[in-house]
Amino acid sequence: MTLEEDALDLHSRNPGKISVEASVDISSKDDLNLVYTPGVAEPCKEISKDKSKAYNYTSKSNLVAVVSDGSAVLGLGDIGAEASMPVMEGKANLLKKFGDVDGFPLVVDTGDSEEIIETVERVAPTFGAVNLEDIKAPECFEIEEKLKERLGIPVFHDDQHGTAIVVLAALKNSLEIVEKDLADVKVTVLGSGAAGVAVSKFLDDAGVGEVVVVDSSGIISSDRGNSHKQRLAERLGINEEGSMEDAIEGSDVVIGLSTGGIVSKQMVESMNEDSIVFALANPEPEIHPEEAREAGAEIVATGRSDYSNQVNNSLVFPGVFRGALNAGATEINEEMKKEASEAVAESIKPEKDMIVPNTLDKELAMEIATRVEKAARETGVVR
Amino acid sequence: MTLEEDALDLHSRNPGKISVEASVDISSKDDLNLVYTPGVAEPCKEISKDKSKAYNYTSKSNLVAVVSDGSAVLGLGDIGAEASMPVMEGKANLLKKFGDVDGFPLVVDTGDSEEIIETVERVAPTFGAVNLEDIKAPECFEIEEKLKERLGIPVFHDDQHGTAIVVLAALKNSLEIVEKDLADVKVTVLGSGAAGVAVSKFLDDAGVGEVVVVDSSGIISSDRGNSHKQRLAERLGINEEGSMEDAIEGSDVVIGLSTGGIVSKQMVESMNEDSIVFALANPEPEIHPEEAREAGAEIVATGRSDYSNQVNNSLVFPGVFRGALNAGATEINEEMKKEASEAVAESIKPEKDMIVPNTLDKELAMEIATRVEKAARETGVVR
Repeated sequence: MTLEEDALDLHSRNPGKISVEASVDISSKDDLNLVYTPGVAEPCKEISKDKSKAYNYTSKSNLVAVVSDGSAVLGLGDIGAEASMPVMEGKANLLKKFGDVDGFPLVVDTGDSEEIIETVERVAPTFGAVNLEDIKAPECFEIEEKLKERLGIPVFHDDQHGTAIVVLAALKNSLEIVEKDLADVKVTVLGSGAAGVAVSKFLDDAGVGEVVVVDSSGIISSDRGNSHKQRLAERLGINEEGSMEDAIEGSDVVIGLSTGGIVSKQMVESMNEDSIVFALANPEPEIHPEEAREAGAEIVATGRSDYSNQVNNSLVFPGVFRGALNAGATEINEEMKKEASEAVAESIKPEKDMIVPNTLDKELAMEIATRVEKAARETGVVR
Repeated sequence: MTLEEDALDLHSRNPGKISVEASVDISSKDDLNLVYTPGVAEPCKEISKDKSKAYNYTSKSNLVAVVSDGSAVLGLGDIGAEASMPVMEGKANLLKKFGDVDGFPLVVDTGDSEEIIETVERVAPTFGAVNLEDIKAPECFEIEEKLKERLGIPVFHDDQHGTAIVVLAALKNSLEIVEKDLADVKVTVLGSGAAGVAVSKFLDDAGVGEVVVVDSSGIISSDRGNSHKQRLAERLGINEEGSMEDAIEGSDVVIGLSTGGIVSKQMVESMNEDSIVFALANPEPEIHPEEAREAGAEIVATGRSDYSNQVNNSLVFPGVFRGALNAGATEINEEMKKEASEAVAESIKPEKDMIVPNTLDKELAMEIATRVEKAARETGVVR
């Protein structure tokens, strides 16, 4: 069977890839009296007196909603709520496997930002945190921002921040190999969607010398009409204009978060010596890893699991949520994200073909969790 | 420890009483390629072409949302969304234990009917059915009705229909013992909330001779200002007026679905010979079972597990949902409810102290499921 056939077969044999299980067994009337009526009234009464007791007596303390409207799914685009379920269920599966987190897929059948915000806000009492997923830009920015303002629980748009965390780790390890300093390099980011915006900001905050962002019309600049791109250009202080080719020429690093096949060998040849190319578009990278190497790239990464150096946010999110929940965090702030990124970077001794750890590393998730939890406590964002 | 202390202890040791588990294990990169990217794109594509494929490739086929706004919880009243969670989690636990159904608690933080409807409608693509729970009357009627209209999946307000199903079964078995016919008896229902309304209608449809409903102001009649009570009185053809005492006098059956302690021994003494008293208010029954017996009641039942004859909807809902999901039902109609009720009634040879089966009977749930599934197919309400 092909991978495609295998995948359909697995999904039809195990629809959902998750299950809801009873974690208390009822084998006698006494059990039933505690799990259900009349005993269940006691935790209800305690929570009605003090809402924070929900963390002691309900699933809330370990329950993360994996929320999507299905508007920007993988490389598939706007396929709608139902069709995005398998991805959300996959994330819920990974949350459990690597983070011991109860993740629950919740797809929302509306494309309206305000309705998504409102819906998540109303069901939020059920959950200890919210993982936003595969929601298109620029809507995802407003949705995340407003939910962070309105809810007292962590809200984390994984396509943005999970990607930013793992990209920074991969970049630091790559620069260590080629012996360049973060502060000296020019990074060109291809794509100004959710991931492109978050990666650019996170690299800028981490002290990268120069960050230039390119979209389908070329280098974004502060006179762009589109407000989120304009704000990004201002924040990054982009003061050049030109095409994607112009941006890549003389760059030390190119980070592709856009569309397959848009980068040519000539463009990679125009980069500085010891160039680094992360071609992260899925499933087809911006340039094939072999071609990038032939064109002189010293370090090459993709988002795919069938090449070395898979830079994928699945390395990150289970540990981030585990840490935030362990801390009783009320948000996931910059310090927590930085610690998560350092945990990823420091978990291995980097080599050219191993700039990030293996994606099946539960110890890594626990190491991320420990550092995220510590950062939450130190920055005081805990209940 | 007291029951109360035991209950708090159990809930703090096992917060939530449910967990979300990975039903597919990821132990290699190959597994990850199927569960997550790139393989997960295949079921996404199939569902985007045909939404009904969500039943084949996602959890939807076995996932039931247990939804509440926390406005009418047990005997506790309007305690809010957070505080109702333990009850919803208890139901999810029972759904799994007795029905092999993945139940998920989803509390909605709003008291506005239209907002509850809208919220459930938006998240409905995730679920195969909706169990409404502990939502106050009369809002619960409108919420259920509109959701049934708008969603193509079963919507079942358990406080109404689960109660009606089990009460009819208990009544039939009790009448068999005292050798009276359904068509000849007068039943007085105390309470015109969710359960009172649904029980009255269901008994009327089943052919009970006369059904009279009493609320805190006495017998409801068709000149009541409150529209849902007025409609109920008209539907039942109630043509008498008077107090609760007036209604009970000369009744064959009293079914209490109201408040503890409101029925006196004198009232039971005024009933017809071989009287039947179901005092189902929880935790305190309308009349203590001992007192009812002293006053001449031939058969007595409560909602409590510490007396014989526990008439509780937990007997019913796991089997009803199992059957509806097995059938691929698009609704839960009257025929399915009648079959569920007959399954309960026929599952035992009734005796005075055993008018309904034990609440810990998984075989009963499966018997209910079989008959509900059959009724769904026969009435054509399947996908």
